[in-house]
Amino acid sequence: MPHVTMAPDLKPGTPGLMQYRPETGRPLSQLAEVLLRDAHSLSRADRELIAAHVSALNDCKFCLYTHSEVSAQQHPEGRATVDKILADPASAPISPKLKALLKISEAASESGHAVTKEMVASARTAGATDTEIHDTVLIAAAFCMYNRYCDGLAAVVPEDPAAYVPMAAMIIREGYSSCATSD
Amino acid sequence: MPHVTMAPDLKPGTPGLMQYRPETGRPLSQLAEVLLRDAHSLSRADRELIAAHVSALNDCKFCLYTHSEVSAQQHPEGRATVDKILADPASAPISPKLKALLKISEAASESGHAVTKEMVASARTAGATDTEIHDTVLIAAAFCMYNRYCDGLAAVVPEDPAAYVPMAAMIIREGYSSCATSD
Repeated sequence: MPHVTMAPDLKPGTPGLMQYRPETGRPLSQLAEVLLRDAHSLSRADRELIAAHVSALNDCKFCLYTHSEVSAQQHPEGRATVDKILADPASAPISPKLKALLKISEAASESGHAVTKEMVASARTAGATDTEIHDTVLIAAAFCMYNRYCDGLAAVVPEDPAAYVPMAAMIIREGYSSCATSD
Repeated sequence: MPHVTMAPDLKPGTPGLMQYRPETGRPLSQLAEVLLRDAHSLSRADRELIAAHVSALNDCKFCLYTHSEVSAQQHPEGRATVDKILADPASAPISPKLKALLKISEAASESGHAVTKEMVASARTAGATDTEIHDTVLIAAAFCMYNRYCDGLAAVVPEDPAAYVPMAAMIIREGYSSCATSD
């Protein structure tokens, strides 16, 4: 049961909290929209993967299930590959660039100070641009927020992974701003 | 030196990053504006204190110096009291409600799962409303983001606390949306 009294018709997870307090819901959903869906040199599937990876490190089931599903539905190699990457990014069949960016996201999840010059240099050698490095750090930092927001208020978290399939499809179709609205 | 190449005329700290990437700077500054400055049953000084306390826990000097200064300039008892509260909230001369909310913010900084029913019940007994509990968790979560964003990109951090005095005065005068703009 959530730590604050929420109307039973609100959505589960973070979207329900965005509906509960739309004044903060708006910038929160806009930030996700820019970071995860706007035109970018990193694919939507890869940015969602970074979000899912950080959510796994923070043990936030709602965000992990949501963003791994959103990634999988947009990934050219589908669910099995996304699961393989999330299980062990270091040995996964992904580009050295994505590997280096996932490493930066892990460090940023721990602490801003854990992101080293060497990690950034490795990402750059693998072809990462300034915007990709900037956005990787900010996606990791933002999910340190979304994860704590969701679990810190004990938001409702569907246990059945199947429940996340239509939610992810809706996000892909309508974007994150649809999360903060009533329908 | 920041991990990404930033023009030398950008502001220090998180505001400079918001100028560097205004697409994300806008929702980031809007979120701070709603959480820390909009009309609220918690004073601006107290909300800034929660932000400063979380920033201290995350060892983010820029955010700690900024938000403790913004709190101090608006606090009826001034700088000395703000410093005392930040040094040891448990023994500080503050209301049981603020004490309980600071405790919730500490837990949320560690992990969303660390916020317990008992902590929330204590805050409620001390008079905290649902919105105050919601916003405390979200302020703590948001500063887990801002802190990681600032230090994870090695943003420029002025060492001299005096440098934060005019920055804080500008925030109080013009709000957080002024952070993401060029002057």
